[in-house]
Amino acid sequence: MNADETAPNLSGRNIISINDLTIDEISLILETSRSFLEVSKREIKKIPTLRGKTVINLFYEPSTRTRTSFEIAGKRLSADVINISEKSSAAVKGETLSDTSKTINAMDADALIIRHPLSGSPYIVAKNINCPVINAGDGCHEHPTQALLDLFTIKQRLGLLRGLKAAIVGDILHSRVARSNILAFTKMGIDVTVVAPQTLIPKDVQKLGVKVTTDFDAVIGGIDIIYMLRIQLERMSRAYFPSVREYCRYFGLNLNRLKKAKEDALVMHPGPINRGIEIENDVADLAQSTIVEQVTSGVAVRMAILYLVLSGETVE
Amino acid sequence: MNADETAPNLSGRNIISINDLTIDEISLILETSRSFLEVSKREIKKIPTLRGKTVINLFYEPSTRTRTSFEIAGKRLSADVINISEKSSAAVKGETLSDTSKTINAMDADALIIRHPLSGSPYIVAKNINCPVINAGDGCHEHPTQALLDLFTIKQRLGLLRGLKAAIVGDILHSRVARSNILAFTKMGIDVTVVAPQTLIPKDVQKLGVKVTTDFDAVIGGIDIIYMLRIQLERMSRAYFPSVREYCRYFGLNLNRLKKAKEDALVMHPGPINRGIEIENDVADLAQSTIVEQVTSGVAVRMAILYLVLSGETVE
Amino acid sequence: MNADETAPNLSGRNIISINDLTIDEISLILETSRSFLEVSKREIKKIPTLRGKTVINLFYEPSTRTRTSFEIAGKRLSADVINISEKSSAAVKGETLSDTSKTINAMDADALIIRHPLSGSPYIVAKNINCPVINAGDGCHEHPTQALLDLFTIKQRLGLLRGLKAAIVGDILHSRVARSNILAFTKMGIDVTVVAPQTLIPKDVQKLGVKVTTDFDAVIGGIDIIYMLRIQLERMSRAYFPSVREYCRYFGLNLNRLKKAKEDALVMHPGPINRGIEIENDVADLAQSTIVEQVTSGVAVRMAILYLVLSGETVE
Repeated sequence: MNADETAPNLSGRNIISINDLTIDEISLILETSRSFLEVSKREIKKIPTLRGKTVINLFYEPSTRTRTSFEIAGKRLSADVINISEKSSAAVKGETLSDTSKTINAMDADALIIRHPLSGSPYIVAKNINCPVINAGDGCHEHPTQALLDLFTIKQRLGLLRGLKAAIVGDILHSRVARSNILAFTKMGIDVTVVAPQTLIPKDVQKLGVKVTTDFDAVIGGIDIIYMLRIQLERMSRAYFPSVREYCRYFGLNLNRLKKAKEDALVMHPGPINRGIEIENDVADLAQSTIVEQVTSGVAVRMAILYLVLSGETVE
Repeated sequence: MNADETAPNLSGRNIISINDLTIDEISLILETSRSFLEVSKREIKKIPTLRGKTVINLFYEPSTRTRTSFEIAGKRLSADVINISEKSSAAVKGETLSDTSKTINAMDADALIIRHPLSGSPYIVAKNINCPVINAGDGCHEHPTQALLDLFTIKQRLGLLRGLKAAIVGDILHSRVARSNILAFTKMGIDVTVVAPQTLIPKDVQKLGVKVTTDFDAVIGGIDIIYMLRIQLERMSRAYFPSVREYCRYFGLNLNRLKKAKEDALVMHPGPINRGIEIENDVADLAQSTIVEQVTSGVAVRMAILYLVLSGETVE
Repeated sequence: MNADETAPNLSGRNIISINDLTIDEISLILETSRSFLEVSKREIKKIPTLRGKTVINLFYEPSTRTRTSFEIAGKRLSADVINISEKSSAAVKGETLSDTSKTINAMDADALIIRHPLSGSPYIVAKNINCPVINAGDGCHEHPTQALLDLFTIKQRLGLLRGLKAAIVGDILHSRVARSNILAFTKMGIDVTVVAPQTLIPKDVQKLGVKVTTDFDAVIGGIDIIYMLRIQLERMSRAYFPSVREYCRYFGLNLNRLKKAKEDALVMHPGPINRGIEIENDVADLAQSTIVEQVTSGVAVRMAILYLVLSGETVE
């Protein structure tokens, strides 16, 4: 679990937080992803690298995008992928997460991918399992593979990361994507401004090395990457803003607002998008929007991660 | 998407409606199915044809038969099959079907199989995806692979199609199976009579080239294929007939009624059957009943379809 | 289905009840499991034995452990494994279990694994399908693969079975695990005492060749295997004991009670465990506890069973 070696090596490592990764390790993931991007464009999009490996997809929250992305990534590497979803799981019978982890470990899993509503739960899993644990989203904490696929998408589009300026816009308070992306962007030398209503800005977020504003229009002009967050109404237990219309007016991305930005600024979103809420219909489909490309990046980056953590020696 | 070429070729094509297929193309599917029928009888029932292809099974309605049939078909062709069901899907989060399609497309899927409660939804999907789309049932619209497997079953049993006489009996109004089978049967030269209570006959159904009657007993004598539809109580929003008992009396298939038919008339049903409702217990299990054989045909026909649309060049 | 041949051979056989198996056949399963245990420890944990075979996992009850165990077992043998769960099944549409079985049969399944809430349901399935049926738990009847993996775990730990003394403790009345384990343990020469409150002891259980007591403390001293059953609150339709606290006091396994047992007595549990109910936290994690090891045994034993029933000639 040592993250500060000279030659980057992710063999046997957990990917739970962006904080666990050095700049060199992130660069290694991004470089490796580029070759896996090519695999998915082949006639026969399958390589035998992880044949005979058992990859567990343990999802305690509904997900199409992330679960499918990991499943496809695993299968294109020839791993056996086992899906376990909350509905059919022992959780119904009241088993603890650490016991579920021990059970999966006892089946000789080679990698465990987990999405769970409880922040920090992948650490509980990691303590009880011998194989690498990959966090596919834990509560309001992190979603590191999202941040990595976003970095990869930016690098594919713009050729570099260091020195770019990004605005991350929306529900910073509840978003695990925001958190992972702040950590990943700043680590890779991207200047980050978070843009949100006061009620959705976490206390002390400046300590993460970001600028903070409630005025989207005031900052959009200098931005290279406009990263729109999903309004997750399902996560909000009380009213954080007066109305959706009010939110859109100040924090939504529409064509009018986009005109104030650089002409080639990227429009990013982790998906699924709420068309007409955080992002206007027409904006989502512009050439400068990377929303669909991010999905393609997702498969490549997850292939790279599975490859890097599962190749070579195993964790103990 | 041109359906009137001389040499039938389904490479890269969508299978959404029977109307998209020429007689020659249907014949090609039926011929190809015959060789795949044999694969499922082998000791090792797997061929490497679709190795490295990603087949997505996107089901917005519960299904054992069709989903499993497509999954087995894909796996016996060595494809990687990914199941996505409504319950765990982004639909819960309000993503539009076209955005879900773009997401799946961005993962470089090679074929997408969709079942959806909304009639016409596979066309929405097809507009947003580069790979062939196969309709596994959309609302009250169509279920083309069912019609194709039914044709295949008839041909296996009776050796030919042209000139046969079929009665399709039951809820013609709501049944996508009825619609696809009317189109497929008439196209292949089978004479079709639809039999239903007046309330369950679609307006203008005669324009599809079928005869219509409410009197099952009056027509059963001359019929080669008695095709019983499932009473889909889950689809009926109001009372279309006085009672189930009343329905059975006039439109159910029991031994007494069957005596009036030709001795070797086929009894068909798309399944799952409601024993004792549209079909009497004993009738379902007669040698002239093809209900179970239709399931076997289903795997073969779906293997043929996946093979034909995925071999050769891809759709753009 | 003849269970009393001289050379044990399970090819084409159903595994529904421990009663179907001779001592020699059980020994064969246990021996075969030992070699499959090794496969799961390899770098590439996959052998081509069941390539091209279709294994169906038909689960009408939620399960992580057993479903996943069978799925991993099948995939490590290179079979195509198809999961069908109650939620997405035709059961919703009212299809009978025998019709579902015929449907699966018509898809040329090679093995069907079933979990169902109705006792005896695997027999209904077996009558309607040509391939081996493996019972993964049916109502309050049996769970034979659990008993076999328990025997395997005991033999791995203690080197032998005959002459050992086991206590099976808890809800004997409702537990399919208890039933299968009583049958399997006694058949293999293990002396069994069942320990439970009077209300949870089945009438005539002595006829199965076991001793019966309500006094755990009086018998624990002479026991080699303390087999704790899960308190299945979800299965209990009325109050069988005054309170959980009362139950724990007399029938739970805690460190104090364990001190009265032999020093090296095994502590077993089929999982998932209710920590602090039938088993104290600390007890579950002792070296003499085999709870996690039983999961590892499960994969090996299920690989052995799939291998033995699917190798050689097929059932008719």
